[in-house]
Amino acid sequence: MQMLDELKFDSNGLIPAIIQDYENNDVLMMGYMNREAVRRTLESGRVTFWSRSRQKYWVKGETSGHTQDVRSLAFDCDADTLLIKVVQKGGACHVGYRSCFFREVSPNGNSARIVGTKVFDPGAVYS
Amino acid sequence: MQMLDELKFDSNGLIPAIIQDYENNDVLMMGYMNREAVRRTLESGRVTFWSRSRQKYWVKGETSGHTQDVRSLAFDCDADTLLIKVVQKGGACHVGYRSCFFREVSPNGNSARIVGTKVFDPGAVYS
Repeated sequence: MQMLDELKFDSNGLIPAIIQDYENNDVLMMGYMNREAVRRTLESGRVTFWSRSRQKYWVKGETSGHTQDVRSLAFDCDADTLLIKVVQKGGACHVGYRSCFFREVSPNGNSARIVGTKVFDPGAVYS
Repeated sequence: MQMLDELKFDSNGLIPAIIQDYENNDVLMMGYMNREAVRRTLESGRVTFWSRSRQKYWVKGETSGHTQDVRSLAFDCDADTLLIKVVQKGGACHVGYRSCFFREVSPNGNSARIVGTKVFDPGAVYS
């Protein structure tokens, strides 16, 4: 996995990973990976983050079943951000939406409206 | 701009902003904004980052002419990442590609191939 040597991890050893829907190009979420999480993601073909809050590896969907199967993994010109296209099962967002970006700010910045689609009941999935 | 109070900026006062092409949903780049950069972006309708390397505001395209006109600004469930859809003039990437994510890693992680489209000559644009 020589390409891992090209990537630039931040002072915490992390790189942000944008997760994009392979089917329709919607941006689903962003998470963080350390070098080992990138390696596991490539090796298993399943998106694996480093959870900053829980300080552990986090195979996306391990609790909910809403896994992300990798279709491609790209990196940017500065090699400090990843873009991963996935086949998303269910919803990416832990509050039940297909995408975590389900709120849009009004042009004057004073309010937000829901633009996302709720695809599951988090109470049923995570209980 | 009351929604700015909802956003969570990191210990450096920054929030990552994913920039997405309004026309075809391609992810073009990621940059960072402080609170004032988000305000300027909403007020002007033109993407304005905080440049971490130059420590100054950076209206995208101010040198190249490759501006990003805002069509929508969304934020995620944790309110710590922005997703901004834009109309991109020219190319987003300073090395001449339409998107900064122009290199894709092979499944075994050993090599990368160019998957992006070069749309301008950086030597001509930035000289």
